[in-house]
Amino acid sequence: MSNYVVTVSREYGSGGRLIGKKLAEELGIAFYDGELLSLVAKESGYTEDFVRRNDQKKTQSLLYHLYIGSQLLPASDMIFIAQSRVIKDLYNKESCVIVGRCADYVLRGQPNVINTFITAPIESRIARVRDEYGESADNYRTYLIKKDKNRIAYYNYFADDAWGKVQTYDISVNSDIGVDLSAKLIAEYVREKLAAK
Amino acid sequence: MSNYVVTVSREYGSGGRLIGKKLAEELGIAFYDGELLSLVAKESGYTEDFVRRNDQKKTQSLLYHLYIGSQLLPASDMIFIAQSRVIKDLYNKESCVIVGRCADYVLRGQPNVINTFITAPIESRIARVRDEYGESADNYRTYLIKKDKNRIAYYNYFADDAWGKVQTYDISVNSDIGVDLSAKLIAEYVREKLAAK
Repeated sequence: MSNYVVTVSREYGSGGRLIGKKLAEELGIAFYDGELLSLVAKESGYTEDFVRRNDQKKTQSLLYHLYIGSQLLPASDMIFIAQSRVIKDLYNKESCVIVGRCADYVLRGQPNVINTFITAPIESRIARVRDEYGESADNYRTYLIKKDKNRIAYYNYFADDAWGKVQTYDISVNSDIGVDLSAKLIAEYVREKLAAK
Repeated sequence: MSNYVVTVSREYGSGGRLIGKKLAEELGIAFYDGELLSLVAKESGYTEDFVRRNDQKKTQSLLYHLYIGSQLLPASDMIFIAQSRVIKDLYNKESCVIVGRCADYVLRGQPNVINTFITAPIESRIARVRDEYGESADNYRTYLIKKDKNRIAYYNYFADDAWGKVQTYDISVNSDIGVDLSAKLIAEYVREKLAAK
């Protein structure tokens, strides 16, 4: 079987990262999240300078034209571009699970890409963030809504599309059935989807 | 175990109705879509034909109703209200699968309600509508987009919420893995979700 990539998008506090990790174990493939992608980007030589020299023509936005005078893109854009290159390299190189970083958008239209989304009710997310992640906030509901907003803004800015449209995903799961069972069920879907091709 | 309801929302041509039917068989519970209409027709005093002609049409403007001087709600509103009442009755009476009719919205906030969504790529939906449903259109893509738009308008009008937000659903599945496998996977999720409560 040829390589495949499973992307995992998720609401903050849904346990999506943990599910992605379990899913990779279940499928016996590599696992990448944001931190790891940044590391790989650095190690691969996709430094900000490299990105600027190699990927400018991709950026046709007004933002680009505003920055072209100084030959610089905002740091966040350059990091996104570097990570996108790593994601594309990974796609060509090995089967893996990639959490976040608009990977579904970066690999859009490619074969053997399976997009997943993890949701959870706000009460469950509050409990997870407070009890499992050990994060503290005066008002957890407000805290989560703000986290969501940042995630949505990030996606909508870089992916140039609306976040959380059900049609974008091959499978979405409310993680209230548990991290392990969610990963198991998604693994089952992935196997069926690859077999159906 | 107490009663539960699985709602099925779907893109036109995704095979969602068939999956709902299989799912009901798999779970050994009742299935409602057209049958529900008959129930509504009886309960509301409308003839089946009247309901069929007016069902799922978006309500005409308020101005129009002022113009015709009707003291009644628009027919489509009355049908929606009657259907909602039937859905709530069913929820209290028996376990079942309900396809469409904003059932997820009608039962929002109730325990033991599991919301599902069936998607499929447009190419698969065109093939299904043409080859399985035997529908003919000059341009299938335009035909499907129009069908989707009607469905979205219906949901957005009656449910007063955006259609197809991934967070609304406990599980969504791209049906390209097949009708039977989709139903089997969703049944598995439903069993786990009920067990997790």
